[in-house]
Amino acid sequence: MAENMILYWGSGSPPCWRVMLALEEKSLSGYQSKLVSFSKKEHKGEEVLKLNPRGQTPTFRDGDVVVNESNAICFYLEDRYHDKGQKLLPDDQKQKAEVLQRTFEAANLQTVFIEKIVHYKRFTKPENQDEKLMEERFSNARVELNIWENYLKKNGDGAFIVGKEFTMADVFLFPYVAFLVRMGLQIEKFPALSTYYKRLCDRPSVQASWPPHWKEGPGQTIMSTI
Amino acid sequence: MAENMILYWGSGSPPCWRVMLALEEKSLSGYQSKLVSFSKKEHKGEEVLKLNPRGQTPTFRDGDVVVNESNAICFYLEDRYHDKGQKLLPDDQKQKAEVLQRTFEAANLQTVFIEKIVHYKRFTKPENQDEKLMEERFSNARVELNIWENYLKKNGDGAFIVGKEFTMADVFLFPYVAFLVRMGLQIEKFPALSTYYKRLCDRPSVQASWPPHWKEGPGQTIMSTI
Repeated sequence: MAENMILYWGSGSPPCWRVMLALEEKSLSGYQSKLVSFSKKEHKGEEVLKLNPRGQTPTFRDGDVVVNESNAICFYLEDRYHDKGQKLLPDDQKQKAEVLQRTFEAANLQTVFIEKIVHYKRFTKPENQDEKLMEERFSNARVELNIWENYLKKNGDGAFIVGKEFTMADVFLFPYVAFLVRMGLQIEKFPALSTYYKRLCDRPSVQASWPPHWKEGPGQTIMSTI
Repeated sequence: MAENMILYWGSGSPPCWRVMLALEEKSLSGYQSKLVSFSKKEHKGEEVLKLNPRGQTPTFRDGDVVVNESNAICFYLEDRYHDKGQKLLPDDQKQKAEVLQRTFEAANLQTVFIEKIVHYKRFTKPENQDEKLMEERFSNARVELNIWENYLKKNGDGAFIVGKEFTMADVFLFPYVAFLVRMGLQIEKFPALSTYYKRLCDRPSVQASWPPHWKEGPGQTIMSTI
């Protein structure tokens, strides 16, 4: 089954990681895994472009089905392989609604941290960076983290982001949390998030999909003042 | 059923519009509809904040279920009311995979047009706007539109974005196409998109949810050079 699947992915990219987590959780770990080097522009190479005209990762094929958007891949896998591995969308409709909400709510982390802070720092010359704007954005980032901290607190110890089972919402949330830690976030300031992070780090799906280049060198400090 | 639903929405916002389209398509048009004025900061008012701590639109409640992310609302509605109105996700797994792909692929229009062009023009002082960067972004925008033009062409006359039925992918795609026309896009340059746009404008769900302030005044010209 999984041997008919091929995934092109980039190391440390939250969208790629969520797909890899979903594959592991659905017991589909035997897929063909192609790590793409962005610095060598492999995502713009012929092999990727023939499946994905935008030349982006993730790019994914399952037999004759091509799905390239990370959100679409995760929902496709849960639907197509609903009887395999971990159930990522619960049957209970109220709980499912909460899983859907948290799943897509995780995109706020992409905006608040990656687009507004990481990309701003990366693409704005140091002399043009607006200190006041950055302070405001760091303040918003703390508000955002506290929203997630409170969800986890309400849910109690040992919980996942929704209820007591790992769901699609964790597939989407966890890569952002790990990314923030990699970027220097002192996660101990957020006790429930810290417990959640450490416990999920031990999960087999997370260990199997941990970004390889993170094992080799230190992270950054950009989030250390949060 | 729909009388237990309440939606807070902003006029002309593609995420709000997709929710309204989904509600109409699922024959749930009797919901309580609350148009929120951004200029009066009603989205940061108590009524919205008690359901949505981020104070954003859409904000949506169905009985005791609160779902605020537009993607989550659309998937919730299709799941919860699968027997009502238009079927937005087909049963056929291959076709469903394509619908999921196109549904989330529409987010590229958000990035390429709204974030990279509209927001750039709105938030960068005219004297700081980089002409060369804008040219590059307009060129990328043409590439993006041609990707959608080709999907529609392959699909033949009278088609929707996937197959011959209106699906979730149209719910996500159409508000962006209409937004671009409102922003001055000369859609006739893209014949298949133009046919698609005009045909969908006549659809009852589209007519019922057309942004009210668009009926009152002219649009913009920002996309007229594409």
